[in-house]
Amino acid sequence: MILEEVNYPKDIKKLKIKEKKKLANELRNEILEVVSQNGGHLASNLGCIELTIALISIFDFTKDKIVFDVGHQTYAYKILTGRKEKFKTLRKKDGIAGFPRTRESKYDFFDTGHSSTSISAALGMARARDIKGRDYKVIAVIGDGALTGGMALEALNDAGISGTDLIVILNDNGMSISKNTGGMSRFLTKLRSKKIYVKSNASIKKVVNHIPYIGKSITKSVTRIKNGIKGLIIPKMYFENIGFTYLGPVDGHNIESLESIFKMAQNIKGPILIHTITQKGKGYAYAEKNPNSYHAVSPFNLKEGKKKNNKKDYSSIMGDELVKLAGKNKNIVAITAAMEDGTGLSQFAKEFPERFFDVEIAEQHALTMAAGMAISGLQPVVPIYSSFLQRGFDQMIHDIAMQNLPVTICVDRAGIVGSDGETHQGILDLSYLNTIPNMTVISPKNYEELRLMLNFALSYKKPIAIRYPRGTESNYHFPKSKEIKLGEAEIIKKGKDITIVAIGNMVTRAMEVAELLEKDGISSEVINARFLKPLDTKTIAKSYQKTKLLVTIEDNIKSSGLGATIKSKIKENKEILSLGYPDTYIKQGTIEEIANTPKSMIGPFLKDES
Amino acid sequence: MILEEVNYPKDIKKLKIKEKKKLANELRNEILEVVSQNGGHLASNLGCIELTIALISIFDFTKDKIVFDVGHQTYAYKILTGRKEKFKTLRKKDGIAGFPRTRESKYDFFDTGHSSTSISAALGMARARDIKGRDYKVIAVIGDGALTGGMALEALNDAGISGTDLIVILNDNGMSISKNTGGMSRFLTKLRSKKIYVKSNASIKKVVNHIPYIGKSITKSVTRIKNGIKGLIIPKMYFENIGFTYLGPVDGHNIESLESIFKMAQNIKGPILIHTITQKGKGYAYAEKNPNSYHAVSPFNLKEGKKKNNKKDYSSIMGDELVKLAGKNKNIVAITAAMEDGTGLSQFAKEFPERFFDVEIAEQHALTMAAGMAISGLQPVVPIYSSFLQRGFDQMIHDIAMQNLPVTICVDRAGIVGSDGETHQGILDLSYLNTIPNMTVISPKNYEELRLMLNFALSYKKPIAIRYPRGTESNYHFPKSKEIKLGEAEIIKKGKDITIVAIGNMVTRAMEVAELLEKDGISSEVINARFLKPLDTKTIAKSYQKTKLLVTIEDNIKSSGLGATIKSKIKENKEILSLGYPDTYIKQGTIEEIANTPKSMIGPFLKDES
Repeated sequence: MILEEVNYPKDIKKLKIKEKKKLANELRNEILEVVSQNGGHLASNLGCIELTIALISIFDFTKDKIVFDVGHQTYAYKILTGRKEKFKTLRKKDGIAGFPRTRESKYDFFDTGHSSTSISAALGMARARDIKGRDYKVIAVIGDGALTGGMALEALNDAGISGTDLIVILNDNGMSISKNTGGMSRFLTKLRSKKIYVKSNASIKKVVNHIPYIGKSITKSVTRIKNGIKGLIIPKMYFENIGFTYLGPVDGHNIESLESIFKMAQNIKGPILIHTITQKGKGYAYAEKNPNSYHAVSPFNLKEGKKKNNKKDYSSIMGDELVKLAGKNKNIVAITAAMEDGTGLSQFAKEFPERFFDVEIAEQHALTMAAGMAISGLQPVVPIYSSFLQRGFDQMIHDIAMQNLPVTICVDRAGIVGSDGETHQGILDLSYLNTIPNMTVISPKNYEELRLMLNFALSYKKPIAIRYPRGTESNYHFPKSKEIKLGEAEIIKKGKDITIVAIGNMVTRAMEVAELLEKDGISSEVINARFLKPLDTKTIAKSYQKTKLLVTIEDNIKSSGLGATIKSKIKENKEILSLGYPDTYIKQGTIEEIANTPKSMIGPFLKDES
Repeated sequence: MILEEVNYPKDIKKLKIKEKKKLANELRNEILEVVSQNGGHLASNLGCIELTIALISIFDFTKDKIVFDVGHQTYAYKILTGRKEKFKTLRKKDGIAGFPRTRESKYDFFDTGHSSTSISAALGMARARDIKGRDYKVIAVIGDGALTGGMALEALNDAGISGTDLIVILNDNGMSISKNTGGMSRFLTKLRSKKIYVKSNASIKKVVNHIPYIGKSITKSVTRIKNGIKGLIIPKMYFENIGFTYLGPVDGHNIESLESIFKMAQNIKGPILIHTITQKGKGYAYAEKNPNSYHAVSPFNLKEGKKKNNKKDYSSIMGDELVKLAGKNKNIVAITAAMEDGTGLSQFAKEFPERFFDVEIAEQHALTMAAGMAISGLQPVVPIYSSFLQRGFDQMIHDIAMQNLPVTICVDRAGIVGSDGETHQGILDLSYLNTIPNMTVISPKNYEELRLMLNFALSYKKPIAIRYPRGTESNYHFPKSKEIKLGEAEIIKKGKDITIVAIGNMVTRAMEVAELLEKDGISSEVINARFLKPLDTKTIAKSYQKTKLLVTIEDNIKSSGLGATIKSKIKENKEILSLGYPDTYIKQGTIEEIANTPKSMIGPFLKDES
C-alpha cells in the first residue's frame, strides 16, 4: 500500500510514476469505501484523482495556492494533504467537510461550495500576490459545467486582460475520450511542451496541420457533445482570443502527461488555460456508466452499486404534481439550472420536452428568462435550491417581482440540508424573500399541502415562492389541509395557554412540542402560518391576545424571518419567543444533529431564553 | 419639421430615406433639448437614434417585441411610439420614465434598468412564442458594456443552442469607426445580404478572403480597443461557434445599411447576432468628445456643454478619504464594476493605478475577486450602487461573509435616488444586508461620519457594508461625531418624552422632526443608530424605557429594515412607530417629492398610523 506511506505532499513528490499510478488506484478505493458509507460526491471525485496527484507532484502547496470550483472534487486532495486519517469522518458532524475549508487545513486556500467562483477568487489571489510582491502560483480548477455560470465568464474576461500569472485548469468531463483522442492528446501534450509553442502559435499551428492524421482531426475530436459551452468548439481559439495561453487538451487520467503540461505551465507568463479531459466516475464501472446518478450519493452498497432511488421526497412530489398540472395547462413550463434530477423534474422533462428548459448552471438567466416567458403568457415554474437561489436575488427583484409576473419559484432544499454544510444550508431564504416587494412566500407542512400550494401558485398568477425542505415529509399525521387562501394561516389545533406559530416542516415540530406541553397540562394553540408574506397577522394576534404567550418556530435564521416578522408586527410582543437558527453559518452534520428537536425547543422556551 | 408629423411607427414607415435622416437630426435636437433641461442619459441615446429609426422602419412593433438592455437608450424609441408630446416630462414625477416601462406604452415589452438582462428576457419571449404557436420577431438590443455582465453570457450560451428565432443586436460603441471600417462595413453588409451567406459560411469566408484589400483587413479592423470583451476580437467566429448567425459589423448610424441588414435578418432562421457599430454621444460635439461624462447628466447648458462637476457628494468624499488612507496603507485596493466616476474612484485610479481594478459590469466577479484578495492579505474596498449590489448577494454571503473576510462594501446611491425610478431606488439594502451572517452594516449621517466609518471599516478587518445616499450631505449642523465603536449608537440629543432612532441621512430628518416637536413642547431624544447590525439594542431600549415612545426613521422599506429589526428586538413594542417606505417599488420623482419630509413624518406619528 502506497497510501499507507503517504500523508503530505512531500511524500507524493518522492514517488515514481509507477507508484503514483498505484496510489491513484488506492485513492479510488479509499474514496469509494468512505463515500459508499458516508455519502458524498462520488463521480466528480473519482474523475479528479490523477489530476490531484499530478498537481501535488509539480506544484508546491506550502506556497502555491489552489482554488477548487464548487469544491466537490477535493477528496483526493484532502487525503493527500494531511487528512488521510480523518477522511473517515467525511461529511459527519465535526468531521472532514465535503468541500475545501480553510479552517480545516492550511492546504485549503478558499472555501467553496457554490459554482463558478474559483476564477474570481484565484484572480484576486494572483493580483494580491503581484501587489504584495510575493512569489507563488495561483491555480483555479473548474469544471466545464461551472464554466456555464455567468460569474466564471466575467472572471475569465477580466483574467484574460489582466496579464497576471494565473493557471486555470479546465476539468472537462463533458467530452468523452475515444482511444484516438487519447492518443492525440498525449501527442499534443508532448508536442506543446517544446518551447516553440510558447514562442509562436502560428508556427505550431502550421506544424500540427502538416502532420497527417493528427492535423485536421484535432479540431473535430474536441467537438463537444455537451450543450452548455458551445463556445468551446474551438476552445483554443476562444481562450487565446480572450488573452489566455491555451495548453491541451490533455488526458486528465494520465499522470505523466499532466505533470509535463504543469511543468510547462510553470514557465509561461500571464494567464494560462490548461484543458484536461477527464471522465466522471472513472474507475468505478457503475459510476462511469451513470455519472449523473453518482454525482452526489447517499450511502450505498459498493458491490451492487447504488439502488435506484424511487423514494418520494418533496422534490419528486413537486415534480409529480407539476406533471399533472402541465397536462391540463399548456402554459406551464419548467426551468432548471442544471438540476433536472435533483429538483424532481425528470418526469416533466420526459413528458413535456418542448416545455422543459435546462439552462445549465445559470440561475440568473433562468429567472429572467422565466420573466420573459411569463410576460408572454406562460406560467414558468423554476425550482432552485435555496442556497443557490441567492445567485438570482436581483433577477427576482428587478425582473420578476417588479413587473409582478406569474413566475413560481420552488425553493428546494430549504432549511438545514445536513452533511453538505454551511454553503448549502437553506436558512436564509425566508429572510431574503421577505424583503422583495410583490413577492408572496409560502411553505407547506407536508406533501399534501405542497400539492395544494403548487395549485394555488399557478392559479394566483403573481410572483410566488414555495419553500420546502430536503428529504421527506414527517411521519406526523395531520388532519386534511384546509384550502389555501391568500394570506391566510391555518389553525391546526385549538388551545388556550400558549400559541405556537410555525411554518413549513416546522409545523410538525410545533405539534410535537404541543404534545410534550400537553403532558405538563399546558394547552397549545398551533398555527400553521402558511404565508410568510403576506403574513396573517390577524389570526396570529388574535390567538396571542387569548393565550398571552407566543412561540414561533422556523427552519431559518431567527434574526430575520418568521419570528422576527411576527415580533415586528405584533404590538406588545412581551411574551414572544422565536425559535430558529442563530444568525451564523451552520456547519455540517445530520439534520437531526443540527436542527431543533422538540425537546431542545421546550427547554429555552420554558427558560424564556429568547 | 418631420418630427411634427410623426407620432407612431406607421408614420415613420412611410418616410423616404432622406426624410428619415432629417428625422434623426430632429430627434437628436429634441433629445438634447429635453435632457439638457431634465437630466438623463445622453450619450447612449444620441448613439441609438438611427438604429431606432431603422428598427421601427423594418419591424412591426404592433406584434414584434423588443427588449432594450439597461433601457437607457430608448428616448428616440419612446418619442416615435406615441410619447412625443409627453417626452418633456421625461424622468419627472408621473412623467415619462427614463427606461422602458410596460405600464407606459404597449410598445414597451419588458421593464429594464439593470444591465445584462435583455437576452434572457428576449429568449424567454421567443420560446413562449414557439410554445404558443405565435408568429412574431423578438429582438434584444444590448451594448458591448452590458455584454460583460455574466448573465448576458449565460443567456448567449443558452440562446445559441436553442435554435429559436431571436435577433440580438449588439450595439457596439466600444470600437471607433474609422472611415475605412465604415466603408468595409457597408461593403460587408451588401455582400452578406446576398443569399450565399445564409447558405454557407465556408464559401462566404472563401469569397471574402479572396477579395484583396477587404479580405485580411476585416479581422484587423474589428480588433477591439476596449478591454471588456476581448472574446470579440474575432466576433464572427465567437458568435458562430456558440450557435448564432453573425451579421455585420454594420455602421449603426447609416439607416440604409441598418434597414438592409434588418430585412435580411427577418429571413434567417435561428438565433442571429447583428453587430452594429455606433458612437456614443453622436451628433453633439461635447458628448462625442467625452461620452463618459455625458453618459448620465444633470440639467446643463446646451450651448456651453456640461460644466465640470466639482461639487462634493458622498461618493467623492468616500473617494477622497480612500485616497488618503491608501497613501498610508499599501494593502488597500479599490474595485469597481464599471463605475469609476460614479462611485468617486477617479482620483484613486489616478494615484494608485496598480491598486485599482475596473472589472466592467460584473458585480459578482468584483465581490468574489475582493474575497480572493482579502484572503491574501489585501483590504479591498468595493463601492457598488445599492440596487446593483443585489446582483452580488450570493457572493457577499458565500464568498465574503462566510469566510469573515476584510472586504469593505461601500453601498452608494442607497435610499431614494429620484428620477431614475424603481429600478434604481436603493431602498432594500438595509433589509438584505441585515440577513447576511457576519456582515456589519453601518450608515453615516454626514460626510464627517462617512470618513470616520471608512476608517473604522478598514481597521475592523471583517466584512462590512457602509451605506450612503446619492448626492450631498444635508445642511444640518451636527455636533462633532463621537468615535465609531462596534455596535454603538450615538445619542445626539437628550430628551424625555419621545425617542427617535434614525440611521444615515435620516438622522437629519430626526433632528428636524425633533425641532418641530420641540415647538409643541415635546422633548425628543435623538439616537443615531449608526449600526443596523450589530444593533445597539441596549441604548435604544434604555431610551425607550425612559420615554415610553419610540419612532424609527429610515431610508429603506419599513417592513424589514431598521424599524422592523428594532421592533423585533425590543420587548413591549407597544408604542413604536416605524417610518420608512412602503413595501413596494417606488417610481421616479425628485428625492424631495418622494422621500419623507419632516412634516409628513409628524402627521402619521401623531396619529399613530404604524
